[in-house]
Amino acid sequence: MRILLPLALVASPLAAQTTAPYDAVDPFIGTGGEGHTYPGATAPFGMVQLSPDTDTSCEIRKCYGHAAGYRYDDPTIQGFSHTHFSGAGHSDLGDVLVMPVSGEVRMDPGDPAVPGSGYRSRFAHADEVAHPGYYAVTLSDAKVRAEMTAGARVGVHRYSFAKGADAHLVLDLRSSLYNYPGKILWSSLRLSPDGVLTGSRETRGWAPGRKLFFAMRFSAPLTGHAFVDRDTAVAYKGFQGPNRGSDAVPEKLGKALEARLDFGRLATPLEVKVALSGVDEAGARANLEAEPGDFDAVRAATRTAWDKALGAVAIDAAKPIRTSVYTALYHSLLAPSIWSDVDGRYRGPDDQVQSAVGYTQRSTFSLWDTFRAEHPLLTLIQPQATTSDVVQSLVASRRHSPDGILPVWQFAGRETWTMIGYHAVPVIADAYTKGIRGYDAGAALDAMVASADYAPYGGLGAYIKRGYVPIDAEPEAASKTVEYAYDDWTIARMARGLGRSDIAARFEKRAANWRNSFDVKTGFLRARKSDGSFRTPFDPTAINYGSDYTEGNAWQYSWFMPHDQGGLIRLLGGDAKTVTKLDAMFDYDNSKIDYSHAEDIAGLIGQYIHGNEPSHHVAYLYDYAGRPWRTQERLKQIVDSQYKPTPDGLSGNDDLGQMSAWLVFTALGFYPVAPGTGEYVIGRPFLDRAVLNLPNGKTFAVVADGLSDANRYVGRVTLNGTPLDRSVVTHAQIEAGGELRFTMQATPNTRWATAKAARPYSMTPY
Amino acid sequence: MRILLPLALVASPLAAQTTAPYDAVDPFIGTGGEGHTYPGATAPFGMVQLSPDTDTSCEIRKCYGHAAGYRYDDPTIQGFSHTHFSGAGHSDLGDVLVMPVSGEVRMDPGDPAVPGSGYRSRFAHADEVAHPGYYAVTLSDAKVRAEMTAGARVGVHRYSFAKGADAHLVLDLRSSLYNYPGKILWSSLRLSPDGVLTGSRETRGWAPGRKLFFAMRFSAPLTGHAFVDRDTAVAYKGFQGPNRGSDAVPEKLGKALEARLDFGRLATPLEVKVALSGVDEAGARANLEAEPGDFDAVRAATRTAWDKALGAVAIDAAKPIRTSVYTALYHSLLAPSIWSDVDGRYRGPDDQVQSAVGYTQRSTFSLWDTFRAEHPLLTLIQPQATTSDVVQSLVASRRHSPDGILPVWQFAGRETWTMIGYHAVPVIADAYTKGIRGYDAGAALDAMVASADYAPYGGLGAYIKRGYVPIDAEPEAASKTVEYAYDDWTIARMARGLGRSDIAARFEKRAANWRNSFDVKTGFLRARKSDGSFRTPFDPTAINYGSDYTEGNAWQYSWFMPHDQGGLIRLLGGDAKTVTKLDAMFDYDNSKIDYSHAEDIAGLIGQYIHGNEPSHHVAYLYDYAGRPWRTQERLKQIVDSQYKPTPDGLSGNDDLGQMSAWLVFTALGFYPVAPGTGEYVIGRPFLDRAVLNLPNGKTFAVVADGLSDANRYVGRVTLNGTPLDRSVVTHAQIEAGGELRFTMQATPNTRWATAKAARPYSMTPY
Repeated sequence: MRILLPLALVASPLAAQTTAPYDAVDPFIGTGGEGHTYPGATAPFGMVQLSPDTDTSCEIRKCYGHAAGYRYDDPTIQGFSHTHFSGAGHSDLGDVLVMPVSGEVRMDPGDPAVPGSGYRSRFAHADEVAHPGYYAVTLSDAKVRAEMTAGARVGVHRYSFAKGADAHLVLDLRSSLYNYPGKILWSSLRLSPDGVLTGSRETRGWAPGRKLFFAMRFSAPLTGHAFVDRDTAVAYKGFQGPNRGSDAVPEKLGKALEARLDFGRLATPLEVKVALSGVDEAGARANLEAEPGDFDAVRAATRTAWDKALGAVAIDAAKPIRTSVYTALYHSLLAPSIWSDVDGRYRGPDDQVQSAVGYTQRSTFSLWDTFRAEHPLLTLIQPQATTSDVVQSLVASRRHSPDGILPVWQFAGRETWTMIGYHAVPVIADAYTKGIRGYDAGAALDAMVASADYAPYGGLGAYIKRGYVPIDAEPEAASKTVEYAYDDWTIARMARGLGRSDIAARFEKRAANWRNSFDVKTGFLRARKSDGSFRTPFDPTAINYGSDYTEGNAWQYSWFMPHDQGGLIRLLGGDAKTVTKLDAMFDYDNSKIDYSHAEDIAGLIGQYIHGNEPSHHVAYLYDYAGRPWRTQERLKQIVDSQYKPTPDGLSGNDDLGQMSAWLVFTALGFYPVAPGTGEYVIGRPFLDRAVLNLPNGKTFAVVADGLSDANRYVGRVTLNGTPLDRSVVTHAQIEAGGELRFTMQATPNTRWATAKAARPYSMTPY
Repeated sequence: MRILLPLALVASPLAAQTTAPYDAVDPFIGTGGEGHTYPGATAPFGMVQLSPDTDTSCEIRKCYGHAAGYRYDDPTIQGFSHTHFSGAGHSDLGDVLVMPVSGEVRMDPGDPAVPGSGYRSRFAHADEVAHPGYYAVTLSDAKVRAEMTAGARVGVHRYSFAKGADAHLVLDLRSSLYNYPGKILWSSLRLSPDGVLTGSRETRGWAPGRKLFFAMRFSAPLTGHAFVDRDTAVAYKGFQGPNRGSDAVPEKLGKALEARLDFGRLATPLEVKVALSGVDEAGARANLEAEPGDFDAVRAATRTAWDKALGAVAIDAAKPIRTSVYTALYHSLLAPSIWSDVDGRYRGPDDQVQSAVGYTQRSTFSLWDTFRAEHPLLTLIQPQATTSDVVQSLVASRRHSPDGILPVWQFAGRETWTMIGYHAVPVIADAYTKGIRGYDAGAALDAMVASADYAPYGGLGAYIKRGYVPIDAEPEAASKTVEYAYDDWTIARMARGLGRSDIAARFEKRAANWRNSFDVKTGFLRARKSDGSFRTPFDPTAINYGSDYTEGNAWQYSWFMPHDQGGLIRLLGGDAKTVTKLDAMFDYDNSKIDYSHAEDIAGLIGQYIHGNEPSHHVAYLYDYAGRPWRTQERLKQIVDSQYKPTPDGLSGNDDLGQMSAWLVFTALGFYPVAPGTGEYVIGRPFLDRAVLNLPNGKTFAVVADGLSDANRYVGRVTLNGTPLDRSVVTHAQIEAGGELRFTMQATPNTRWATAKAARPYSMTPY
């Protein structure tokens, strides 16, 4: 386990700098360690993530560490590619890699240990600049200053070559993240008479048979070019197209294509604008035309977009935490990213071209992660611009799903079947119960029910029949049972809202199913077999893929009934026993445990594992047991140890914004333990003052009077001047605007919000 | 060389049967030997060619012999696939192979030598029936009567299973013609809730990165199914979609997909309607909906279409030659086949989706073969329905060509760069000079000029500069030089017609370029080097791929200046020397020559090689030397030895109708030696009477009075009762309607059409 410096120890004076939110963001946070973020340029929810890849060869380094292409501790940059996940634990993408070269043009990236052995170049962090929508670096071997920016569907490169040097670009369509032999199914390059280079690539990666198209315009005319296929040629009896022995090939097709693009000596920097499309090259071209302007124009427009998006929260706080939180906010505003073209066309889950009418289709849904805090955060700061689009996109995806169900882990429009649950369901229910509209709610409910009733998926047939997923029929059965039960509860909530009491009643019953997998004797969630018995042997600390739990064990998963913590507390024997168990989890002695085989397990505090999602709500559960001061203690422990404003400042994968959204909420002083309740559970603030500039025009201020490292406890809470006696603030209260004021103190307030009536929602009464 | 029975020896009484043209067609002609035709079902120019494949494994048999999937001498049928070339010398296609199975379902085709080792089945020719648009066979191992029919964009299967047998289908997306490891790039299967099975396949075959989509509807509901991927799975950390261990997979993606489809015991035959599309699955579905009706309805509609198409010529003749000619006419009506979907969308040469407005986009352009007689035949019998579409399709293809030029050898919308020349040019010029309209003639001329001026293609840069293609820069230089010169002449013709005398003058000059590669000393066309010298050593009988000539040698190629035979006769020293040289070619003693290495070289009469195209006009050249009776002799020699109404009745690849169109014209008594002249050169008729039912409503009758095996010479020719003194009938004369009457006799008429003024067109005066 990595030791992180507590934020408080590196704190600067309390008087917060008034730098713009934009300047407070440090895109390098998470690019070291296993945060798996990227430092490159992207617009809010942009289709393009134009970022340096330091290594795309899984043979040189482990794929896992290079899930976002860039690792802070790598010494060279291989090139700049246009698609990246922010913080994924598995990966793909890294499409359309471009690298500037001067001097001799080598067509292989070369060995990082042997400078000059390929087109890759050394670089120094001192020469790097990264802001939202902007990245720059000096490539010392290529002698090129490289700058990147991005719009909604374009990335723009600007390369300043050394004076007198010949300018070349290498475009390597062989390069990909999580690459392996045979991943590139096919690719094409095509140079049009107007100088636009278009192309496509199909990959068999995480998303099967993924298609991507691009269109690329250069600010200077090509003086020469070569398209090469590095794959073994297929010989056809001497059939021979034009250009044998010539560089002027206007089209090339193959599995291993590269282009060398020559521009001669340039008086001004070379700009390359690249648009993507999941539909076709015409779509990419239209996307290219839709965002006119040069590098500086695109950069300025995107800066404006970021100022607006980050302006959702105005933060006064010490620089380190302000940097961490604004960077977290930035990381929360990347996915689900734009997927439809400017004309509304997009490639759906059935690989067919569909059309989004009146909204923007989104993809990159890491729902097992993001239903927890990322999507609830977007309901506050992007209710219409994004959340409504997200719901429409999910429902449209279900309409075009070969299985007829909502996305599980979707990107580039395609299902990857990664992780478990049907967590598009709580995302939609949370948005609906918060009053966010702009989609067909009836169709959404239909999609939710269809997903929950789809017997062939994840043991659902058996779950519906028995009330739990039997481990002898389906792996990770314990985790599935509890996550399904929560998802079911959110269906019931939405069905009630829509007056569909038949559906509501059925799913309210299913919402109690978590009990069927809970072993009261051991006090843990356990996997049950078809015959009703719990599987043995049982070790609550065991973590194995395909075991009884999903990326976790009984310690983390025994707390997953966010809609029914009252029920859990009863099963555990009351508040005191619950707190004892929570403490046992956080204080567990791991000295005899080795989790090095489990890539996603990081950020351990005992058996609390902050680097992965199942633990994310657990610190807030002391509130449910009437001990809010214990939540406050644990939150400080977590924030201090799991986040810092440095490249290795994330203790685990950011998971498309979930790790970050956790920090945004927690720093504000509350967290959506159970999306769908409309409640945020109060923890404690970490910011002196934060003002939510709500899209409805109102503001909601969170003030932490007397906040300091010593004053770690909440003494008093008022909402709009009136004491708040519950450890909950509702979405409606926030939307109404006002002020949530905390008075911080050095000692616990053991009387506030301890009464059962003061606690957060629970399906089963306390 | 194969010895073929002369047609005359198997002739039945002269009184011709009055069977319908439809019944006179024998689709088995050309399915043996190296004709490479297929016996299956297709509509005129249909997108679907639904035909049995007897072997698709190039490892078991040579690919070349199975270019059309079916070989008459094979003992088993592997399945029925939906796309086939008619008579190609190279191949691809064989898409979406379906095979009915009863009893145990094996998922591999198995060994033809071991019955029951796979899903393939034995069959007997006695159980086969083939008519235009209909094919039936009994699969003895599967115990299934299989029938096939096809519409414009659909194929329909009808399988009658044995009483009480369980009905299954195997769908094998691994199967392909000219298959090799890695050819199948990707494929998909998707079962929709309405029971329609859709899917796609991408192949890296003759056409690079070809995409094909299909939609399949069954007359009975599926009782079960399994989609399997026979490729090595790509493991992703245990990510697992629905249906593990279940058959109910609604979608499968991979490189080696198969489906097992179960129907239980059926009371009525199982019908399967399959539509194709080059665009997407939605296109295939729309094509499926566009042709409603069951097997019998589609069969009847296609029968009507064939009756109409074959009714273009009403033939009275002895059965053998009538069968040969009607089958040849049938084979002339298959390509260029329909490529656009019913909504006009199609995949263009740039792999992008394009739209054909107001016409039907065609593809499968084997232009090096078909510019000679196939397209000229279509100008007579399908001037608007097909020829106008063809011109529009060619010009549209140029518009979307990455190289900006007309197709060379295109199928499925994609360029394969097979063979030489820019022979879309004479196809367009021939249509234009014959008055066929309905396209933008200016754009067509632009496309023709662009193709002729595209320096990177086939040595054109050097050709334009030097007046010949230099062999040290470009292979097959001699053939290219003369074919370019002819194509250039047709550009000039069309430019004159459009009043573009600037273009006409430039290309008239280029039309004489054939002389630059002609060696007057040896009397042969020879390849010249950049320094102007002829390459040595020189052997006029040598045939090697990539040598000085294209699928031929100096003997065949020295005659290729169809627009300027007068010029050739002068170079050769006059009529007598020309005739001596022609005789030397036909009478050449091949006993010391081995051409077994050259797949396409077949049908030899001395150095005249009827099985391949460069010779096709040569027998008519005696006319040009004022010896029409010698042409008459040679034609009888060729028809008797190269065609017969049996499976091995074609002496070489039918080449998408060119071998067949040669017979149709020759049997009528004339042949388009130089498309673009508007002239057909008179040979001698082989039919007692033939009436062209012209699309303009007129009829043009060709009558051969006294025709018999003995009366092999033309004594007299009249056109509409007036003696015809030239050995030429023009397109305009035919279009005007009337009667061309030959009086046949046993001795040569050595006075008719011998005068220089009586001879066919020549650029250089005789």
